[in-house]
Amino acid sequence: MARYGKGANAERELIQALFDAGFSVVRIAGSGKNPLPAPDIIALRKGRAIAFECKAWKAKNLAIPVDQMQQLLQWSKRAGAEPLIGWKVPRKGWFFLSPRQMHNSGKFYLISLNDAMRKGKSLFTLQQKVLGK
Amino acid sequence: MARYGKGANAERELIQALFDAGFSVVRIAGSGKNPLPAPDIIALRKGRAIAFECKAWKAKNLAIPVDQMQQLLQWSKRAGAEPLIGWKVPRKGWFFLSPRQMHNSGKFYLISLNDAMRKGKSLFTLQQKVLGK
Repeated sequence: MARYGKGANAERELIQALFDAGFSVVRIAGSGKNPLPAPDIIALRKGRAIAFECKAWKAKNLAIPVDQMQQLLQWSKRAGAEPLIGWKVPRKGWFFLSPRQMHNSGKFYLISLNDAMRKGKSLFTLQQKVLGK
Repeated sequence: MARYGKGANAERELIQALFDAGFSVVRIAGSGKNPLPAPDIIALRKGRAIAFECKAWKAKNLAIPVDQMQQLLQWSKRAGAEPLIGWKVPRKGWFFLSPRQMHNSGKFYLISLNDAMRKGKSLFTLQQKVLGK
């Protein structure tokens, strides 16, 4: 419950930030609601689309199962959307990563918190980059 | 309950047809799940986006409250998406309408079933038009 709440709050924060940056945004309902796999959040602006998979947890590493990442990549390719992994770390904020920035171990796409903090975009940077376009 | 089921089945049919036409598709959860207004279904393909508002009912007229239509139009404009009204009529199939094809009475956007059947695109036509692009 606490975990669900944390993830939902993180997603609400991201949705509001994207809306403020001029995007139309939707949050997709959890599994079962959609007959086909889908990202957590989709943001559209002037025909540009970003598909977000969001994680909100405190850990030394982020691990995304390969099949989940493949679904995101396939979904994004068909859509013509940019896939982004959003990792919200308590007290450190958001780190946005391209799947290419993660390491495919065969079972998981992995990145350490240190690498995510070094390579990832912040929410502010994401907004600026987006607004600059 | 019966009405919910009918609408959900109609949406599932549309989602599958769009998926078969090469789109990435998402169904958006009902009000309350999304902090911001959103369409019922979004379909994306190679950067082209369509925002659907779907109705599934048997009546002589389709009436969409002006505020609901305004939300769809604003959402679509920000997104760079094409807004489409999908009306599924039992035993007659789908009729897809641009908001421009409906009459704004001040309180509702209206169209008669006869006009919808005459002016609307069928599901087949929608797929063909989409595939032809």
